Amino acid sequence: MNLPNSVTIKEVGPRDGLQNEKVFIDTQDKIDWVNQLSETGLSYIEVTSFVHPKWIPQLKDAVHVLKQIKRKKTITYAALVPNMKGLERALETDVDECSVFMSASESHNMKNINKTIDGTFPVLNEVVAASLKENKTVRGYVSTVFGCPYEGNVPIDAVLHVSENLFEMGISELSLGDTIGVANPRQVEQVLEEVLKRFPSDKLAMHFHNTRGTALANVLASLQMGITKFDSSLGGLGGCPYAPGASGNLATDDLIYMLEGMGITTGIQADKLLKASQFIEAKINKPLPSHSLQVHRATCYS
Amino acid sequence: MNLPNSVTIKEVGPRDGLQNEKVFIDTQDKIDWVNQLSETGLSYIEVTSFVHPKWIPQLKDAVHVLKQIKRKKTITYAALVPNMKGLERALETDVDECSVFMSASESHNMKNINKTIDGTFPVLNEVVAASLKENKTVRGYVSTVFGCPYEGNVPIDAVLHVSENLFEMGISELSLGDTIGVANPRQVEQVLEEVLKRFPSDKLAMHFHNTRGTALANVLASLQMGITKFDSSLGGLGGCPYAPGASGNLATDDLIYMLEGMGITTGIQADKLLKASQFIEAKINKPLPSHSLQVHRATCYS
Repeated sequence: MNLPNSVTIKEVGPRDGLQNEKVFIDTQDKIDWVNQLSETGLSYIEVTSFVHPKWIPQLKDAVHVLKQIKRKKTITYAALVPNMKGLERALETDVDECSVFMSASESHNMKNINKTIDGTFPVLNEVVAASLKENKTVRGYVSTVFGCPYEGNVPIDAVLHVSENLFEMGISELSLGDTIGVANPRQVEQVLEEVLKRFPSDKLAMHFHNTRGTALANVLASLQMGITKFDSSLGGLGGCPYAPGASGNLATDDLIYMLEGMGITTGIQADKLLKASQFIEAKINKPLPSHSLQVHRATCYS
Repeated sequence: MNLPNSVTIKEVGPRDGLQNEKVFIDTQDKIDWVNQLSETGLSYIEVTSFVHPKWIPQLKDAVHVLKQIKRKKTITYAALVPNMKGLERALETDVDECSVFMSASESHNMKNINKTIDGTFPVLNEVVAASLKENKTVRGYVSTVFGCPYEGNVPIDAVLHVSENLFEMGISELSLGDTIGVANPRQVEQVLEEVLKRFPSDKLAMHFHNTRGTALANVLASLQMGITKFDSSLGGLGGCPYAPGASGNLATDDLIYMLEGMGITTGIQADKLLKASQFIEAKINKPLPSHSLQVHRATCYS
């Protein structure tokens, strides 16, 4: 197997994880948790979201959290920004990077953003331009790359259309999302073959969900295609918004177990990660789906 | 990716699954369940175990189950046989194949079989010879191939030593077990590189546990090495004997989801499998770890 020597993990738990949990985590607990994450060796943390609190009340304290965390210079602290209103709030803080998002499928985009795909471009274009002007880098998320909960199959041309438009706006990295966790490794290979014809691998990240247990197999397929950036959520926080009770986000702890076991460096200290994982599990007050946490809970052997 | 067109799944849930569940499933329920499995398109079912009921009371009805199931000619019905006493009981039935087992690591073999590795060979040799004489094919299991709960790392030479001895006895297939679910894809590649120097791929099966979420990634690595036979347990039945509460056996339903999605034929009908999965979940009376079952329970979309 031809595999990279090192991988960058983009921790999205504080945003993508918490926004899909029903419980409101106290602001100070969020701050403490992000501070713990900053000590694990992570180089990227998506801290919160500036989507209107009406839609995501769990993250209504976005400004406060971003202002209060202890920042490390080696870490990029990012936040999701849906529109100019969100950007205004984001710019009250010293966030390093803004993330914009849209879907590759019309129905999911409509349900999520209430706009057509082509109608979303001008909104994001304005956000990206304004962010760049403020010296913030911008990351783009494309959802439903491998399947849509409403439309099923998503043609690769739809993925390329959205990706090209986002790169033209000036994003520096694109995260390809398997929003509903339906992807398989062959599909990952096929999609990446096309995407890599247009964009270099160092501008791409993969965002897998483990809804059907295939996330790490899809990571393996991506590694073999030269991908070196992966989004994940500590403890598997977040679940699946389309299948409540089912696994959602790939757990950072499980991703690191596999990568480090394969000799692929992540720079992350598993013991500190485990503590941060247990911290948020206690606050969420339910067992998180991470396999590493399950094994640790069992404590039969280390 | 260079992948096989079809794969054979060896369903081990009725044996490896049930032997690790605390609940005793009624004999008639076991029979009904195996009969349902026979209708799914599976070509191999490990039905039960002839380990002494003192050790595995859950399967004390082995003779009765094997005698009462409705047999299909297209299916191999197998059972685990630890020694000559077990074989005597097995031969009261018309079992097609006997499975013998031992570990690649001394401590696990001692804990499990109460014999050294070299002390186990004569016992199994007698069982294999007697089985072959009765026109039963024999399958060999090697446990702890990728790691031992007591010793940690297991040298490849230990795996080869046990494998060679089992093949010399006359087994027709060897199943390589990641008993505690610690394997990663790079390790799978490295182990298979060595094993495939000695034995052809069509004599090998992989038996992965999903304890750390890596089972399907390990399947993918194995497929790329030319392996076309995989053991799995419906619904992920069985858990992990070394980490109670954690995932154990790879779930047949999840394996099939990935393989069929990749265009790799298994011959198994997912809808019938789901029903059989729900049947045994209701009898076990707790949610099984299969991701496919989780998604189905959520029933947000199909």
